[in-house]
Amino acid sequence: MEVLVLFGSESDMEVGAEIVKLFDAFGIRHALHIASAHRTPEKVGRLVKKAEKEGAKAIIAGAGLSAHLAGVVASKTLLPVIGIPVAGGPLNGLDALLSTVNMPGGVPVATVSMGKAGGKNAALLAARIIALARPDVLKKLESYRDEQARAVEEADKRINAGRR
Amino acid sequence: MEVLVLFGSESDMEVGAEIVKLFDAFGIRHALHIASAHRTPEKVGRLVKKAEKEGAKAIIAGAGLSAHLAGVVASKTLLPVIGIPVAGGPLNGLDALLSTVNMPGGVPVATVSMGKAGGKNAALLAARIIALARPDVLKKLESYRDEQARAVEEADKRINAGRR
Amino acid sequence: MEVLVLFGSESDMEVGAEIVKLFDAFGIRHALHIASAHRTPEKVGRLVKKAEKEGAKAIIAGAGLSAHLAGVVASKTLLPVIGIPVAGGPLNGLDALLSTVNMPGGVPVATVSMGKAGGKNAALLAARIIALARPDVLKKLESYRDEQARAVEEADKRINAGRR
Amino acid sequence: MEVLVLFGSESDMEVGAEIVKLFDAFGIRHALHIASAHRTPEKVGRLVKKAEKEGAKAIIAGAGLSAHLAGVVASKTLLPVIGIPVAGGPLNGLDALLSTVNMPGGVPVATVSMGKAGGKNAALLAARIIALARPDVLKKLESYRDEQARAVEEADKRINAGRR
Amino acid sequence: MEVLVLFGSESDMEVGAEIVKLFDAFGIRHALHIASAHRTPEKVGRLVKKAEKEGAKAIIAGAGLSAHLAGVVASKTLLPVIGIPVAGGPLNGLDALLSTVNMPGGVPVATVSMGKAGGKNAALLAARIIALARPDVLKKLESYRDEQARAVEEADKRINAGRR
Amino acid sequence: MEVLVLFGSESDMEVGAEIVKLFDAFGIRHALHIASAHRTPEKVGRLVKKAEKEGAKAIIAGAGLSAHLAGVVASKTLLPVIGIPVAGGPLNGLDALLSTVNMPGGVPVATVSMGKAGGKNAALLAARIIALARPDVLKKLESYRDEQARAVEEADKRINAGRR
Amino acid sequence: MEVLVLFGSESDMEVGAEIVKLFDAFGIRHALHIASAHRTPEKVGRLVKKAEKEGAKAIIAGAGLSAHLAGVVASKTLLPVIGIPVAGGPLNGLDALLSTVNMPGGVPVATVSMGKAGGKNAALLAARIIALARPDVLKKLESYRDEQARAVEEADKRINAGRR
Amino acid sequence: MEVLVLFGSESDMEVGAEIVKLFDAFGIRHALHIASAHRTPEKVGRLVKKAEKEGAKAIIAGAGLSAHLAGVVASKTLLPVIGIPVAGGPLNGLDALLSTVNMPGGVPVATVSMGKAGGKNAALLAARIIALARPDVLKKLESYRDEQARAVEEADKRINAGRR
Repeated sequence: MEVLVLFGSESDMEVGAEIVKLFDAFGIRHALHIASAHRTPEKVGRLVKKAEKEGAKAIIAGAGLSAHLAGVVASKTLLPVIGIPVAGGPLNGLDALLSTVNMPGGVPVATVSMGKAGGKNAALLAARIIALARPDVLKKLESYRDEQARAVEEADKRINAGRR
Repeated sequence: MEVLVLFGSESDMEVGAEIVKLFDAFGIRHALHIASAHRTPEKVGRLVKKAEKEGAKAIIAGAGLSAHLAGVVASKTLLPVIGIPVAGGPLNGLDALLSTVNMPGGVPVATVSMGKAGGKNAALLAARIIALARPDVLKKLESYRDEQARAVEEADKRINAGRR
Repeated sequence: MEVLVLFGSESDMEVGAEIVKLFDAFGIRHALHIASAHRTPEKVGRLVKKAEKEGAKAIIAGAGLSAHLAGVVASKTLLPVIGIPVAGGPLNGLDALLSTVNMPGGVPVATVSMGKAGGKNAALLAARIIALARPDVLKKLESYRDEQARAVEEADKRINAGRR
Repeated sequence: MEVLVLFGSESDMEVGAEIVKLFDAFGIRHALHIASAHRTPEKVGRLVKKAEKEGAKAIIAGAGLSAHLAGVVASKTLLPVIGIPVAGGPLNGLDALLSTVNMPGGVPVATVSMGKAGGKNAALLAARIIALARPDVLKKLESYRDEQARAVEEADKRINAGRR
Repeated sequence: MEVLVLFGSESDMEVGAEIVKLFDAFGIRHALHIASAHRTPEKVGRLVKKAEKEGAKAIIAGAGLSAHLAGVVASKTLLPVIGIPVAGGPLNGLDALLSTVNMPGGVPVATVSMGKAGGKNAALLAARIIALARPDVLKKLESYRDEQARAVEEADKRINAGRR
Repeated sequence: MEVLVLFGSESDMEVGAEIVKLFDAFGIRHALHIASAHRTPEKVGRLVKKAEKEGAKAIIAGAGLSAHLAGVVASKTLLPVIGIPVAGGPLNGLDALLSTVNMPGGVPVATVSMGKAGGKNAALLAARIIALARPDVLKKLESYRDEQARAVEEADKRINAGRR
Repeated sequence: MEVLVLFGSESDMEVGAEIVKLFDAFGIRHALHIASAHRTPEKVGRLVKKAEKEGAKAIIAGAGLSAHLAGVVASKTLLPVIGIPVAGGPLNGLDALLSTVNMPGGVPVATVSMGKAGGKNAALLAARIIALARPDVLKKLESYRDEQARAVEEADKRINAGRR
Repeated sequence: MEVLVLFGSESDMEVGAEIVKLFDAFGIRHALHIASAHRTPEKVGRLVKKAEKEGAKAIIAGAGLSAHLAGVVASKTLLPVIGIPVAGGPLNGLDALLSTVNMPGGVPVATVSMGKAGGKNAALLAARIIALARPDVLKKLESYRDEQARAVEEADKRINAGRR
């Protein structure tokens, strides 16, 4: 396993699907689990230890509301931990953002964008870390970047075609 | 021990002092510790278990920034857990408030006011819980309430004396 | 009656239903009332006094917007008062959160999560207080906790079953 | 008494002083009291009734944090109630603003600016209400307005004098 | 005319309808107009002068976004001006609230709740001002208050009937 | 006059000084005035008309709190209007930002940064508009930009010199 | 080309359509492109240089989330740059607003309203700049303003017709 | 060079000093530069390319206000980019946080805590990435973690010593 992916609740799977899609495309081995910092703290600990043993290079943790999952994971490992503030609830993720990002000095969480964009960016950030030692993943990242640029180019053509 | 009081950092002791003062006045036995959800997670667990064994009726947990302490404690015990969002940092405690209060359904944290007022209110909330079984504490709460009312009355006189 | 449950408006009953469901399951005797801090202040006072007489161990108060209900209740009793910031209105409950939680030092309100999660957590917090003197409720809390953990475990299996 | 002025705490008197200064200048009879919605609810009720009896035309209520004072007053009288969100505490009055202004439909609070400007504007708003029946107060308001315009004019001259 | 009611845009009429309904029930003569501080500043001035001449006792002004209407009106008259922050736009009225309430010292706006509740409360606040000189309106306010209390009472019965 | 600069209050002159300094350096003729949208609305109108007559190319308006000045100016002219949200008051300028920027469709205000940076950026934005027809101002803008880059370069050297 | 219009994503075209409609009505020559500060930074640079060569008088840039587009454009040109904070994402454009408006001193972005109103106001602001040298555009702006006033007048009639 | 550290302004060096201290202690080779996304975009590009050539494993970028630096860097490289929202300005870093973290899907920035804590956490996050291939850095991280735990332990003793 290269990346362990944890979400606090099954309802976060829309975000999780973004990660799986990218990891599958990039050939990055990963495990995906629901595990709650508050409801199943031991399970979180067990999965983190397992990931360390299997040589994981990063752990992604996504949660909503008072999102403690990424911080709790970061306190249990010295691997890079990536946090996704899952949008939802009455404040639509502002609570999850602040709970994830403003960790006290000493326990870093690499926080990415809120919501679905966060799923994509968490996967790409993990891929950038893995690419430091896997040139094939770097290639994929380059292709992905080119594809994004091409998509912008095509959108640009599309809207201008529509205007004439 | 009737109440375990935990703070995430020594710099939170200004808030902690409010609690100690009230508990001493009310005759409520308590232990006060610095213990961090992220830097010393095992210690947090150990102190919580000890509090349970010694018959504690409540646990107070105060922390700042991405304040996970109260939530982590609430996931390790079935005692009532009171959370204080310690003000400080660039957002002056808004992050601590949201990290403490918006717990997912299933793991309740009884959040009180931000900052120093939160220290006072956490102690009074614990005292209200303890007073359910200790009439002497209820008496103290009544006196405290009367004293507060008297203080308002005196302030009222003071400002009106000053006006004539 | 062990817990008095008050809501400021009939439209808050979606949150109230969470409480009733849990209290019924836990065998906690309770009364549920609509009573407004602003529209029926006397009724609030009457219900609080009645709850005290009948030996209530906690009062839950939920309201939206400039949510004064929990604070007003906390000024009329020395029982533990649990406040639920009901989400809704243009600010979707941010006003209710701040109106409920930031009580001046001296009058504590045990604020729980915003919205539906708050209903669940208010009931569980009350149950934790009641469990201090009722071992059967503590048992129910333990089962509930185990059930929650099992639900996470099953969700975890479900998403991984879906992936193969 | 034409206006009853209430503040929740002696520390709000910096705001209160603005009101007294204006009312003295305008010849508006008023009483100023410290009275807390939470610590001395009965006193609030008593003062409101007294104000009604003495023919008050408006009540001003200022408070900070979870500022319930103005709303509580508005539920006890049918006089126009003016609320001042006193700045202070970790959120610097944002809590007081939302607690004061977003009253549920049915119980209006006339909320003015936060902080010291709020003291001035509460007094002027009360004066505008009183001026509906007292032409001499209307005259004072006109002079005050002219004075303000003159002050702007003078400031304008001052900064331009300084520039040459 | 006793009250002039202004809204910045036709889309605010949902709020306006609340006012008309209450004024019609209370027998308060009023005029309702769309007039924009930015698009028709002269019209605003003209309507304000007309209201003054016809003996209006208050002006209500509702607007959304950077809501300047109430402040602009308050600078053109010495009548009490009531501002309604109309919810809508990407920030759902937070901009309208701050634009309406935080007037610099000297030009007061009596700001009421955001959105539809604001329509109701603006009308009731105006009615409280008018009731200072019209006992029949005070009667209506008393009935309205009783009716509100009764509605709470009935809601209370309804939810408890539903529970057995 | 090429640019009219208005501020709502003498206390905003710290921001105004940034503008004067840049305009003097760029050789842009300007007038600077204190004029309040609420306290001296007629003066605002007069100054705007004068600026139009004298061929001004832009108007800068800075104000704090419920900052209506820039919007009011933009409703009185078809010149480009630049708004500066002056920081200050309990919300430290958030109110001024939202009051200035979120103008309803039809009346544009070119809002720049909050506070002192806003003074600088308002002047540079006006200079960019003027430079469309004055090549000498474009030259000054180019030099200014180069100077800024050089200042970064020097800061870079300074911190690295300090490190050896 | 008189104005270059850039958006970060095809999904922003609802806002873009407002601009095209107004520019077509005003006879302002423009180019509209999708170009991303992060995905196609070179393309942004190329389009900006092209706009400068073709004599553009302003550049409009709209983006959502961490909206860097307008700032990046403003660092590559000395033309006036107008930024539109596109609403969307979990924070509904608050991130885009702050990312666009609070530029450090030295690199001004003329920020207009969030969302669709921002499209309209960006176009009108550009038109005001262009009108400095094109009297025919000034005429159009005058007609547009009159039309807006007329629309308010008609709305006013409509709602009052509906009331009788 | 293993890590390139960029800050947008010399005034951010208080945060930068935290990074240098940790990197020196951990034996991580790094370069520290002032380079602005807006004032010296080419320099940013040059430094990023140089870092890539010299085998850097991560780039840290810190900036305040509309903080575009980290995002701009992330668009120019496929290395992991760590963003620090520097606190300061009227909103005290909320703008910097949202500008840094909410990157559109495709261009990830690993955002850490605001302010000084962010400097520490950025360095530790970079160290965690580097430790994937350097066991000696992993050792340092373990010692650092133990030291942190010891510091908590000592603080705990200190406050309890003080209490007897």
